[in-house]
Amino acid sequence: MDNQIIANIKSLGIDMINQANSGHPGIVLGAAPIIYTLFNNHLNISNNDPTWFNRDRFILSAGHGSALLYATLYMAGYNLTIEDLKNFRKINSKTPGHPEVFVTPGVDVSTGPLGQGFANGVGMALASKILKEKTAFPSNSKLSQESLIDFNVYVLCGDGDLMEGISTEAASIAGTFKLNNLIVLYDSNNISLDGPTSNTFTEDVRGKMKALGWNTYLVKNSHDLKALNKAINKAKLSNKPSFIEVKTIIGEGSILANTNKVHGKPLESQDIKALKGKLGIPDEPFFVFEDARNQFKKRISERVNIKYSRWATNYQRFEKGEMSPHIEKYKWIFGDKQPVDLKKINLDLDINDKEATRKTNGKIMNIIADNIPNFIGGSADLFSSTDVYIENGGDLNYYNYTGSNIWFGVREHAMGAILNGLALCNFLPYGSTFLSFADYVKPAIRLSALMKLPVTYIFTHDSIYVGEDGPTHQPVEQLAMLRSIPNLRVFRPCDAHELIGCWNVILNNPTMPNALILSRNEVPLLPSTIADAVALGGYIVKKETNNLDAVIISTGTEVNIAIHIASELYKTNQIDLRVISMPCQELFLNANPTYQEQVIPKNALKIILEAGSSYSWAKFMEKNAKLITIDEFGASGSKDAVSKKVGFDHITIQNKIIEWVNVNKNVK
Amino acid sequence: MDNQIIANIKSLGIDMINQANSGHPGIVLGAAPIIYTLFNNHLNISNNDPTWFNRDRFILSAGHGSALLYATLYMAGYNLTIEDLKNFRKINSKTPGHPEVFVTPGVDVSTGPLGQGFANGVGMALASKILKEKTAFPSNSKLSQESLIDFNVYVLCGDGDLMEGISTEAASIAGTFKLNNLIVLYDSNNISLDGPTSNTFTEDVRGKMKALGWNTYLVKNSHDLKALNKAINKAKLSNKPSFIEVKTIIGEGSILANTNKVHGKPLESQDIKALKGKLGIPDEPFFVFEDARNQFKKRISERVNIKYSRWATNYQRFEKGEMSPHIEKYKWIFGDKQPVDLKKINLDLDINDKEATRKTNGKIMNIIADNIPNFIGGSADLFSSTDVYIENGGDLNYYNYTGSNIWFGVREHAMGAILNGLALCNFLPYGSTFLSFADYVKPAIRLSALMKLPVTYIFTHDSIYVGEDGPTHQPVEQLAMLRSIPNLRVFRPCDAHELIGCWNVILNNPTMPNALILSRNEVPLLPSTIADAVALGGYIVKKETNNLDAVIISTGTEVNIAIHIASELYKTNQIDLRVISMPCQELFLNANPTYQEQVIPKNALKIILEAGSSYSWAKFMEKNAKLITIDEFGASGSKDAVSKKVGFDHITIQNKIIEWVNVNKNVK
Repeated sequence: MDNQIIANIKSLGIDMINQANSGHPGIVLGAAPIIYTLFNNHLNISNNDPTWFNRDRFILSAGHGSALLYATLYMAGYNLTIEDLKNFRKINSKTPGHPEVFVTPGVDVSTGPLGQGFANGVGMALASKILKEKTAFPSNSKLSQESLIDFNVYVLCGDGDLMEGISTEAASIAGTFKLNNLIVLYDSNNISLDGPTSNTFTEDVRGKMKALGWNTYLVKNSHDLKALNKAINKAKLSNKPSFIEVKTIIGEGSILANTNKVHGKPLESQDIKALKGKLGIPDEPFFVFEDARNQFKKRISERVNIKYSRWATNYQRFEKGEMSPHIEKYKWIFGDKQPVDLKKINLDLDINDKEATRKTNGKIMNIIADNIPNFIGGSADLFSSTDVYIENGGDLNYYNYTGSNIWFGVREHAMGAILNGLALCNFLPYGSTFLSFADYVKPAIRLSALMKLPVTYIFTHDSIYVGEDGPTHQPVEQLAMLRSIPNLRVFRPCDAHELIGCWNVILNNPTMPNALILSRNEVPLLPSTIADAVALGGYIVKKETNNLDAVIISTGTEVNIAIHIASELYKTNQIDLRVISMPCQELFLNANPTYQEQVIPKNALKIILEAGSSYSWAKFMEKNAKLITIDEFGASGSKDAVSKKVGFDHITIQNKIIEWVNVNKNVK
Repeated sequence: MDNQIIANIKSLGIDMINQANSGHPGIVLGAAPIIYTLFNNHLNISNNDPTWFNRDRFILSAGHGSALLYATLYMAGYNLTIEDLKNFRKINSKTPGHPEVFVTPGVDVSTGPLGQGFANGVGMALASKILKEKTAFPSNSKLSQESLIDFNVYVLCGDGDLMEGISTEAASIAGTFKLNNLIVLYDSNNISLDGPTSNTFTEDVRGKMKALGWNTYLVKNSHDLKALNKAINKAKLSNKPSFIEVKTIIGEGSILANTNKVHGKPLESQDIKALKGKLGIPDEPFFVFEDARNQFKKRISERVNIKYSRWATNYQRFEKGEMSPHIEKYKWIFGDKQPVDLKKINLDLDINDKEATRKTNGKIMNIIADNIPNFIGGSADLFSSTDVYIENGGDLNYYNYTGSNIWFGVREHAMGAILNGLALCNFLPYGSTFLSFADYVKPAIRLSALMKLPVTYIFTHDSIYVGEDGPTHQPVEQLAMLRSIPNLRVFRPCDAHELIGCWNVILNNPTMPNALILSRNEVPLLPSTIADAVALGGYIVKKETNNLDAVIISTGTEVNIAIHIASELYKTNQIDLRVISMPCQELFLNANPTYQEQVIPKNALKIILEAGSSYSWAKFMEKNAKLITIDEFGASGSKDAVSKKVGFDHITIQNKIIEWVNVNKNVK
């Protein structure tokens, strides 16, 4: 029966690719025994309840193998039809080209860009470890202690995943945190897209994983299901994360087997015919052994039944409050969200105070952490500079998974992907580094945005004002890079009031990821800033006195500069300016047009003032607009010297405004 | 004497940081013995001739240790004065906050963002290996064979560098290519910025490096110069790249030693006083033991003398043509550049042909490779898709360093940094992957741009047209990300003519990095496109017939669409459109204003048509401009279905143009 199901998974996968005329047969034919073994014998999952919170997670890090996953999910009885399989890679189907979470039942995370899934797995395994400690039922005997949540995470990855640096970063973290609930299966076939791995990937992969703190296993032949099961069973009992190398043959059974030609193109029809013959599958498209399929479904549900029932019992105990006297603290696990109003929080703000927004933010985050139990995160070795350390939270480590502060190390990329994994397990996670190093995290941020996960990236040390550390550490183009990512809210608050507003939006609308851009430099608390206005994206912080000459649109540290210049120019040059603070472009662009027009009249001269790339501002430029931005790298020097060098000093800014306003008046 | 020089390097470094009131004392005090030993006993360098091509390269991957490097260079007699040291971190100084190549004599590469320097070192070591084979003098005996170029590369790195994924990627490549001329010294002090590495970095680092194909060594005490020298001497004879872990004490001698507090802040004056006492340095700022300094200079020059003279002799042999009958082929090593005119090359282009620009580009690159000997590169496991394989070039590997095709593996990030290393050794390197995965390379591209290195990034599989692979593989915001990087030319050619123009600019102006954006989809060869016009950035590909109604600015695959729509709308709606192709924004923005105005009249209605983020276009929007761009993620489906979904289908585009033109006419 095993072989029949495996053969049927293969044939369905190949039929899907053939029908779509696009896809990746190599992994379907090579890795089917691995995925089958996982589903058949190991994954605690429920095809009727695919989002069961305590299910084991399965991540196809080699996301190009989507056909393999969909075929398996179909055979395992998930809510997918043959019609869905036939619509593989078609628009609006349940079976897109690469796996997409929230689209296909049974898909736990969107994958495709290599290495991401591996690192997401580390995040999910970490989530499970944290929740296992947090949801433990009290017990007299340590031995019998049980938790509401205690799932395992299984990752299927290929050579490509393991070549990517992010997987090493993530593996090193998993090793440090001893995530023994994480089991990675390596589809090891000696072939990558371009050819034999001997051309470029000759490292001792298991040796590397061992050095990173993992237990490693080798299954010499993927057909040896006994050996495969044995390795997985050992891995489940391991005291460390486990890495199982399974030797497979890419495209096994095709005439192109064992070559890169079978990786990413549909097979020829003759090849498919012969292949199906070898597999014992009748030569008709989308043929299904219904008996085998039923057997497969049955076996899974029978195996998982006990665990699933146990869950039901435990859930009742949880609802009865047996788990903890503060049970409401844990309801977020099941999606229960409480409105948050940070404005009520007393930050002891004084209008005469000056403070770097990173510092103020640290205070706010400490208050949030005290109030929101699933608020968790850390830093890529920059707690001391980004100020996100939660003072009462303790450090997360393998002997204390309940600590709130995660030490990601200098591994920005894995940090992002781990945050995605945590968010997929209902945490509200955050990670921090310098804005310059947002570059290192970009691929993971893109996936946060694609999946619309409520991850918050905290990027401090904004702009050329970083000064002495020089151009490598002075972000110029990063704001534009972040803003250009669809589904990402980028906040650049100008003071504490706006910071509170940002967090109110972030916490009350956890529907997408956020980037919070913070200054190293001190800024005053401005009398005219309004926390609530952040939800509108932009608003007036200084109205013109009589007749509007121009609107200055600015953000972050430049808002204060704009207000000053506006006051000065009215006195000295009778130039009458309105100043807009725009803490979040995305929100303003989604605000209602009447409001937009009230704030920024279409016909007014608009001057954009921001210490970052001009590339952020196209949508505000449609008519009569001017840019005071920075489109060159900074330099090492004091912040004033650097500002002058890039034409962003007070005088230069002021002169540009005067010139443009005068030209505009003459045109009128 | 050794100790006196080491002490003086430390005291100068500390004085610099103190004077700048900013910098990183920890590494200065911890790693001084390592850098001293390298300069004193191993580096083949010349302080009089700091750009001597065959010098050993030294890379401070932990770039925050700049004070350590500058103090050492000063003591070693490089062209730096005490005044320069006093100007540490000041604007326009020779001693910026992080090392900057071309600014400070003796600095071989700009470093700071962690991990980059490590990977640059792999690129430089690879360059040396290639050149060693290419510049070998013919000899009767294999044993006595000598090469003009045969330098070693030394990297000094810290914990942070080794946590970054890029260093593992690069190390794996170095292991595969057996770069035994690469020696990495690991300043191992168990402390990173935030605290003890035990919190997050518990892996067996040497075990990892060994698994990646390196020889590894441990020096238990950095003060044991004998052991350090012994390890380096062994490494020089190694058959693999070498990794030497040297145990050090961060901030040694300070009261904050062995804590993270000494990493990145100036020491207190009392601490400095006590420290200098321990070091035997008089308590005056910038004190120098002149005798020791002279000794140090002398030792280096005496040691290197033989090698340097040998170089002079060999260089004469080279000039006499002894090395090769085709000696002119190697002159590029010394900066000799030949003008290139690709228009002369016959590509057998036919106006009726349709071809994906990636395919055409592959043909052009093959011709370039036949003609330009330092043109070298490869792909991040996507030769088969990006089409950059050089057919007559052969593969580069450890048994054939002269192969032109470098298999970087699925390691985009290291690829970028290795290209930077190659470019710093006078190659004209290129690397390729999908445009979506430009995200993975961004940090390295930024450094190409900061250093203005002539690296060319080839990004294929442009935009939503990728279709079935879905949103993870459909770049939307990547063009904006790339364009926003200062000093980077981003080319998006629309056909073969423009592609030739792009390469003419790239090859004849190798003054900065380039990104070349290519389509997977077929495009026609357009009758009105002009190779030479690419140098102007943008130009008219279709003039209006009588009275200009609007200018459509488009790029790449959209140029053909724009031309078609313009023809149609003139016939059907009497709308008279001009079409601009803008293969390179950066070049157009630098063209002379009269030309800019001729092409895009300021007062004309401008419609921007590009299948990418609106964030690319702020500078073209100052007055009366409209955007037809894509600010959302794509989807998995046919390219037509996806285009429709994101409002980028023919009808939608056409209707928007009609509406805007009509509104504009009414306004007039």
